Order: sequence, then C-alpha cells, then structure tokens
Amino acid sequence: MIEPKILKGFRDFLPENEIPRQQIVATLKTVFERYGFLPIDTPVLEYSEVLLGKGSGETDKQLYRFADNGGRDVALRFDLTVPFARFMAMNHHLLPLPFKRYHMAKVFRGENTQKGRYREFMQCDFDIVGIDSAEADFEILALMQSSFDHLHINGITFHLSHRGLFNDFLKKNAIEADLIDILRTVDKLAKIGAERVKEELSAWCNTKQIEAIMQFISIQAPLSKAITEAECLVGAESEGIIRLKALATLLEACHMEKQFLLDLSITRGLDYYTGIVYETFIDQLPTIGSICSGGRYNDLATLYTKERLPGVGASIGLDRLLAALEELKKIETPLGLTDIILFNIDDNLKGFYCEITQQLRTAGLNVELYLQEKKIQPQFKYCEKKAIPLALIIGEKEKAKQEFPLKNLQTRETITCKTIEEVVQTSKRLLNII
Amino acid sequence: MIEPKILKGFRDFLPENEIPRQQIVATLKTVFERYGFLPIDTPVLEYSEVLLGKGSGETDKQLYRFADNGGRDVALRFDLTVPFARFMAMNHHLLPLPFKRYHMAKVFRGENTQKGRYREFMQCDFDIVGIDSAEADFEILALMQSSFDHLHINGITFHLSHRGLFNDFLKKNAIEADLIDILRTVDKLAKIGAERVKEELSAWCNTKQIEAIMQFISIQAPLSKAITEAECLVGAESEGIIRLKALATLLEACHMEKQFLLDLSITRGLDYYTGIVYETFIDQLPTIGSICSGGRYNDLATLYTKERLPGVGASIGLDRLLAALEELKKIETPLGLTDIILFNIDDNLKGFYCEITQQLRTAGLNVELYLQEKKIQPQFKYCEKKAIPLALIIGEKEKAKQEFPLKNLQTRETITCKTIEEVVQTSKRLLNII
Repeated sequence: MIEPKILKGFRDFLPENEIPRQQIVATLKTVFERYGFLPIDTPVLEYSEVLLGKGSGETDKQLYRFADNGGRDVALRFDLTVPFARFMAMNHHLLPLPFKRYHMAKVFRGENTQKGRYREFMQCDFDIVGIDSAEADFEILALMQSSFDHLHINGITFHLSHRGLFNDFLKKNAIEADLIDILRTVDKLAKIGAERVKEELSAWCNTKQIEAIMQFISIQAPLSKAITEAECLVGAESEGIIRLKALATLLEACHMEKQFLLDLSITRGLDYYTGIVYETFIDQLPTIGSICSGGRYNDLATLYTKERLPGVGASIGLDRLLAALEELKKIETPLGLTDIILFNIDDNLKGFYCEITQQLRTAGLNVELYLQEKKIQPQFKYCEKKAIPLALIIGEKEKAKQEFPLKNLQTRETITCKTIEEVVQTSKRLLNII
Repeated sequence: MIEPKILKGFRDFLPENEIPRQQIVATLKTVFERYGFLPIDTPVLEYSEVLLGKGSGETDKQLYRFADNGGRDVALRFDLTVPFARFMAMNHHLLPLPFKRYHMAKVFRGENTQKGRYREFMQCDFDIVGIDSAEADFEILALMQSSFDHLHINGITFHLSHRGLFNDFLKKNAIEADLIDILRTVDKLAKIGAERVKEELSAWCNTKQIEAIMQFISIQAPLSKAITEAECLVGAESEGIIRLKALATLLEACHMEKQFLLDLSITRGLDYYTGIVYETFIDQLPTIGSICSGGRYNDLATLYTKERLPGVGASIGLDRLLAALEELKKIETPLGLTDIILFNIDDNLKGFYCEITQQLRTAGLNVELYLQEKKIQPQFKYCEKKAIPLALIIGEKEKAKQEFPLKNLQTRETITCKTIEEVVQTSKRLLNII
C-alpha cells in the first residue's frame, strides 16, 4: 500500500473550500469584464531562461526548476507577471492595444511555508499594456476598488506611492546610492522598524540624508494634502507629482478619493516598477498585510522584445483574500448546491425515480436521486451532510395515488403535489424562502 | 534580449480561445451542479510514488518528474483520476458518501505532440465514489448526455461495454490468457484492423478461440437487442448482463436508450476498470475519436487505503471537445465582452469621462473609456478589434448641452440621450437587439 500524502505547502480543496474559492473567482471575473478586461491563459511550465529573465537570486532559489525528458531547462511559473511579459512580446501584434487582460491561475514557489504561505497558490492579475496615461493608472485603481466592493469587503484603504518621487527626492538630496537598494531597505520598514532601517541606510547615506529619507517616507495622508507635502520635498516639476495630481483629479471626479492615501513608505521591492505603486490594506485586519498590490512598469517586456509596451497592473493574492474573508466572517458556509433529493426506498420504482429526477433537472432544478435503495435514515443523514433543503419521498402507495409529497427538511413540513409541474413551482417558491 | 518562446506542446490562450474555453467550463459546471456534483481541487504537483501507483511503463515515460529543492521525488499530475483516488483515501471520512465530485483542471504528459495532442491540456472529470449500483452507473451516463445537450452538440452516440462480460466470455471459451492482454489487443481494433488483432491474439488463443473473440467484439447494436445477443454468448448469470439489463431499464424509463449502443469492442485499455466502460463519439466527426470516456473502477483507492471505495466516472477531454466544436462551427466568434466605449477626445473632460464610465458600470454595463486622448480614428479601430457595439462620443459642446450621443457602431445611427439613466436604458434595449 502507498501512503496517501501531499507535499508540504500544497493543499487539497474539499468542496467547502473550493466552492467559496470558485465564487470569488466568478465575482472577480464579472467585475474584470465590466471594466473591459479579457481573459488569457499561459502554460504552467516555461523555459527557465524565460522565467528567470531579470530575476533576482531569491526568485532563483524558490523556483521549481528541472530538466524535462527532452533535456530542456524548464520551470513552473512563480508569478503571472513574467509569463505575461513574454506573452505580450510574442502576441502583441495580434491583440487590441491598449490590451486589458486578466489571468487567474496557480503559481508555484518553493519558499518556506508559514501561516498563510503556500508553495502552490492562486493569483488574480489584471493589467493594461500598451499605454502610459493617468487614465490607465486610474482604471486599475478603480477596478481594485470595485473588486473589493463586489466581494462586500468594506473598510479598505489603498496606499499609493510613485517611484519617480523617490528618484527625484534622492537627486534633490544628492544621495547617490542605487535607487533599488534604498527602496528595498525602506520596504522593510513595517517589518524591521525605523531604527534598523536607519542603520541599513547608513551604508549609503550620512545622518542628514537619513533624516531626510525618514521624513520623506513618513508622509502618509489623504491624496491632495500629501501631494502638496511631497511637492515641497521634490518640486512641482517631478513627473511623479504631475501624474499623482492627474490621478487625484480623476479619483475626485468619481468621488473615490477618500479610500486613497499617499504613503511614501510604499515602495514595492521589485525593481521593475517605474511609476505609481500601491498596496491594499483591510482596516480591520492590519496584520494580514497587503491583499492587492501592483504598479506601473514601463519596461517589463523589453527583456523579450524591442517593442515598447508600457504597462500598469495589480495582483490579488486569492489565498490571503480567502483567509481575510474567513476572518471577517464573509464566507458563508457553502450551503448545498442541491435543491431536491429523491429518496430511494423501493427497488421496483428505480426507473420511475430516474424519470422524475431527469424531469426536475430539465426544469432547471439541481436534483439528486439517492443512489441505492436503503432505509430512510442514512438518506436523511446524507441530506444533512450536503445541506439539501427539499426531499421527495415516494413509495408504491404515493405512486399509485399520483402524489408527490415534497418535504421541507428544515421545517419537516410536507406539501403534497399532484404533478411534476407543481413540484417544480412549489420547490422554486420554497427555495426562494429558504 | 531573451527569445520569447514557449515549450513544444504547450500553448498560450489568447482571448478568442480563452473565452470559449471558459464558456464551456461554465456550462459544464452548471450541468454538474444540476446533478448534485461538488467541485474539488488537488495539487498540480504530487509525490511521484503517489502518482505512479499502479502505473504502467508508459505513464512513467510521459511523467514530468524531478527532485524538488528539498530532494523530494515529485511529478506533475498526468490525469485527475489518480490524484482523486489519493484524495479519497485521505479525505473520505470528511465527505458525504456516496461522494459526487467534479474537477476541471490541467494535466501534463510529455508525450509526442501530434495534431490535437498537447503536453499541457485540460480534463473535466466527474465521479461517484462509495457505491456500486446501477443508479450510479446511470447517473454518470445521464450526466454525459446532459453535458453534450447543454453544449448544443447533437448526434452523439455512447458506446457501452462491461468488463465482466469479457471475463465471463473468456471463461466460457476456456481462454486462459490474462484478461488485460486480450483487452489491450482488442482495444487496438479501430487503429490496426481486424487482421492484425487476430495475429496478436494468436499468441494466446487457437483459431477457434480467435474466431469466437472476433464474433464477440463485433456485437454492436441498440442496448436491448445487443444484450440479448451477448447473453447467448456469456450466459444470463453473468454479472455484466445483470448490470447492463438494470441500466437499460433505467435508460428506457427516461426515454434515453436511443443514444446508447452496446459495443463489445470498447474495452478501455486501463486495467483499473471493473464494470461498465464507455466511449463517446460525435456521429459527424468519427475520426476525432472518443470525446468522453470512463467506466466503473471498484478498487482504485485500494492502492492507498483499506477502505473499500467503489467508483464510477468519466472524463471529458476539453481540448478535443473544443476542436470538435470548432469543426462543427458551434464556437461563435467570441464577440466583445464590452458593451459601451467612451471616446477620449478632450483632455479637459477626463474627469467627466471617468465619472460617466463609473456610473454606467455601476448600472451593470460592461464599459470602457479609451485610455488616452487621441484622434477619433484609432478609437474606432480599437472598437472594431474588440467588437464593441456602442460608443458615447462627448465633446465640450455636447457636455455643455447635457447631451449623451450614443452611437450604434454597426448601423452608424446615433441616439441622443439626455441623462445617464437614458443611456443605460437605451443601451440595454439596443444590446438586446444587436
């Protein structure tokens, strides 16, 4: 016998977990399409060379990488962004540009498992490629907000920043370190605290510069107020300021500005971002971290093509989101998907049971026949386990009288119908109430 | 620069392919749930030992197998059946039994690529585990039929057989070869022809036995007629005959028997089947092969558990099905998912455009704003590429007059609306007609 086990960091999804996951995916799909985004898919397995692209050492270590049977150096995708850059390089001439796509699929990272971290998990990405405009930046932010609205998560705050601001700020203060080194250090603020950030910064900056950086990243306020503050530090001619102002105008025109903060401590560690960046926090669950992050990356596909394909996008971590929804008690115990069960109590009536089952299904109801003749008790137990609300219990006697006794399994009341049509109507009425 | 390329046998799905694929998945999901089947998911990556289980050498060669960073011997799943057996062994005590599940997901086989064969492809599996009854067998067949009905594929024939019949037949004819050797040979009938099958059979059978086998597998007729024929060859006491008769009764009670043939040449090569087996053919496309196959396997999970978990199920090959639907011209060119586009023709109106866009989306329409100010021609071109039916073209003049000119991009007619509410109502009316 082989021990049935699964790999650490991988999960089985039983119906009670898979149903809510599918419901979230369906909700997001509706919202994405409301915004004119189209679905795509890419392979789970790609050439390692393609996936590693600009990759840092960290990505490399987490990669599920191997030689396939043909000796090719291949790997499982670790995100949906890099494959999308490759996809755009190959297919941009076939697509309507600007191209708005969404992609919800599994990705794989061999990282150390900890609470809420898995080696196989699902990402929901949406991007606009082929354009660098405030409208496109706005579109992604509006879509993020709509997504959480449709998932009935209130109390969300979006923390924005802009890579250009940081650049201009460093130039103004004559700090000559590599931007990405500073960004990576600042990115750790929440994790390691101000003192250790200062310590790390001292590798590149003098005390005055460090104080200036700490003041800069402490800016966190409603958009228009914070933009004014930032403008004082980097100058009105900063491209970041210009874009943020344009964005604020659009958000205000749509009365959406309240949920958005300018938060200059948001940097997003990844070095491909070139414009606005953002993270999303649930006010009630600050410790869970960002549930939707992203930004503008104007050169991502340049690894694979000379075509200039500026992009902006975001990614929802579905597993973290599911955990959040559970904690907020927004996940309903997935009630049975089945509306009616036919009890199987008389061997001679099997054909009759099958016929009725099929007729009710044709009428659009979700129906099951208990799949073997048995005493009534195990059949009730089955209904309970699957949360089935209605049962038809027909024996020889009822059949002879042409009666269809429809039992509401919650109230234990029975309504005796005279025709299948009546069963359908009564069920639909009861199901609306239940 | 890195060459953007994908692995042989793997595919990108552009929206025009991904949209129909998602539509099929959504249709099947509806049908599966109408029959009381619940969704599950399992990991893409599993221990090789678990996946190889009973595997033959062939599976072994096709497996994407490697050592992960922790040195574990792992592999990508090559079907959804083996992981399901492992899943049942681990989780059966948590599930309502009999357990009816569906699972639609990607599987991976490093086989030689040929027309219609891919190394990454999608399977749609549905099974009932925990029971061995004619009702359960019927349920899977009825679900198969409903699935193709809902996909609007007519002219489908289901070819049934039963492993027990073959067993009993071999015993009756004193053929002592291994059942699975005979089955595998017979399974090649369509591929290699009668003469070569006879030749191969001669390894185990004498001429008289070969003739008997050839006669046996030539039985192919409507259920009740063929069952009578088969009964003559194997005896009425054969479990296969008893089950097939029970099944025929249920199919007849539901007036479904016409689409079902008993076809004793159907054997399904895999050795885990123990009862009925079936394949599904589209009458108009005989060369495409079976698009939905399966059968009863009463011992599959016994590799992993002492619990007896008899099962019956089937699998739809989504890629073959998609190819079939394309050939039958049942795939509509996926029209744009977007209902209305707002043209972006005046830089000063950006905030206004965003506001209207958001209002129309809130009203339930799929709406886009063209994402940068541009001349009108590229915006028309974009609409064409995305098959967007309606456009709102508002300049300073229209805004001042509070007019919303809604253009039907097919007829080129414009209806001038006075309010957003009127735009919503007019659009919904036009979209119903278009």
